[in-house]
Amino acid sequence: MLNNITNKKTVEICFSPKLFPYILTKNNYIIVIVDILRATTSICAAFDNNVQEIIPVAKPENAKKYKGTGYLIAAERDGKKLDFADFGNSPFYFRKKQVRGKTIVYSTTNGTNAIECSKHYGTIVIGSFLNIKALSDWLIKQNKNVVILCSGWKDKFNLEDSVFAGALAEDLLNNKNFKSDCDSVTAALDIWLLAKNNLLEYIEKSSHRHRLKKMVLDDVLEYCFTLNSTNVIPILKGNALIDCSKI
Amino acid sequence: MLNNITNKKTVEICFSPKLFPYILTKNNYIIVIVDILRATTSICAAFDNNVQEIIPVAKPENAKKYKGTGYLIAAERDGKKLDFADFGNSPFYFRKKQVRGKTIVYSTTNGTNAIECSKHYGTIVIGSFLNIKALSDWLIKQNKNVVILCSGWKDKFNLEDSVFAGALAEDLLNNKNFKSDCDSVTAALDIWLLAKNNLLEYIEKSSHRHRLKKMVLDDVLEYCFTLNSTNVIPILKGNALIDCSKI
Repeated sequence: MLNNITNKKTVEICFSPKLFPYILTKNNYIIVIVDILRATTSICAAFDNNVQEIIPVAKPENAKKYKGTGYLIAAERDGKKLDFADFGNSPFYFRKKQVRGKTIVYSTTNGTNAIECSKHYGTIVIGSFLNIKALSDWLIKQNKNVVILCSGWKDKFNLEDSVFAGALAEDLLNNKNFKSDCDSVTAALDIWLLAKNNLLEYIEKSSHRHRLKKMVLDDVLEYCFTLNSTNVIPILKGNALIDCSKI
Repeated sequence: MLNNITNKKTVEICFSPKLFPYILTKNNYIIVIVDILRATTSICAAFDNNVQEIIPVAKPENAKKYKGTGYLIAAERDGKKLDFADFGNSPFYFRKKQVRGKTIVYSTTNGTNAIECSKHYGTIVIGSFLNIKALSDWLIKQNKNVVILCSGWKDKFNLEDSVFAGALAEDLLNNKNFKSDCDSVTAALDIWLLAKNNLLEYIEKSSHRHRLKKMVLDDVLEYCFTLNSTNVIPILKGNALIDCSKI
């Protein structure tokens, strides 16, 4: 019994990439990258539409170097597509006929930055509401400590990533092999409990939801907050994300 | 009317000293330092008991230099009194007969670090549940942008500081001269709404509450979560905190 308790794996939530160094008390993590509006939702959409692989790139100038090499480039800053890119950050760009079998180079304001700052500290996996059930089932099977890393907005706390983090933490903590003594988890669980019965209404309070509205980019809202539309598990292998549910 | 809207002052919450650089979009802030368990509660207790001034010092070795100079030294790390100090971090040490008319040099794990990292960016004022109503009334009078800076636990998010931040933000946003589009404020308000009807029960979920319990230092709980026991407004002038409610 004691063995059972001490062998439990931890769940932690990190509300910003800038806080990531301060939660590193153990190694051999699985790190779930979260950027609900819109990078990690779009990555799940792309894999659901059979993209071959996605190369996340933190700096736009490094994404630009791939121009003309045969890769598709998706790149945005502050919500807007960059001029050299084939498309921006909406999951609606990542349709089957555009992405099937392709490699995409991808650079976004927050999500790819979160991957960059954490990728040397464990296995990187991509989370969104689209794949939340498949992801929690997969995480439970791995039997490792989990950090849910919210990309936030320019290194600040954001609401939509935190709500997702609470939802995923709830799934994990419902399994007896996980435990948490992390205050971020406690807070995110409470926010998720307030949000879960009407997620879209709750997300009306998010500042980024209104930022997207001003830019007429909020057509994605319902899509981004639809649960379990795919079973993909995008993980980072080398410099590229691949769908490990198909391996 | 337009003028009225544009002149509204902002309320922001920063959940960790490490996130403070990322909220600095304006200057001329008032920065409310929060470390409910226990530094900012103890500072309010000390001023309520007529301490003359408190010199916050981030590094314990710098606090030690004051030894033998006639000042009282309060210093702790990880909840424990440091050996060179006259007393630790419990508000119960800061009683009238000990502190009246004295100068205290004060160094703590989280609270004095938060003062150190923010003191060059605006007016520093100390917040706790003990002085929350007096503080919100004072902040409303100042007519400046407010950042509520949670000290957290070793640069991580913590629950009790965030609950307080939500309570103070609620008071400010009930005043028509304040506005917020900060997701941290939205989340903290929601956490405060869940906590407010039974604050001590909610704080049972805080990891630091259990850390204090293990060290038999949790006798302070009820005191730290008692609202409006004092009207002191400790602000930083030069290198020392003084009570500006008496000026």
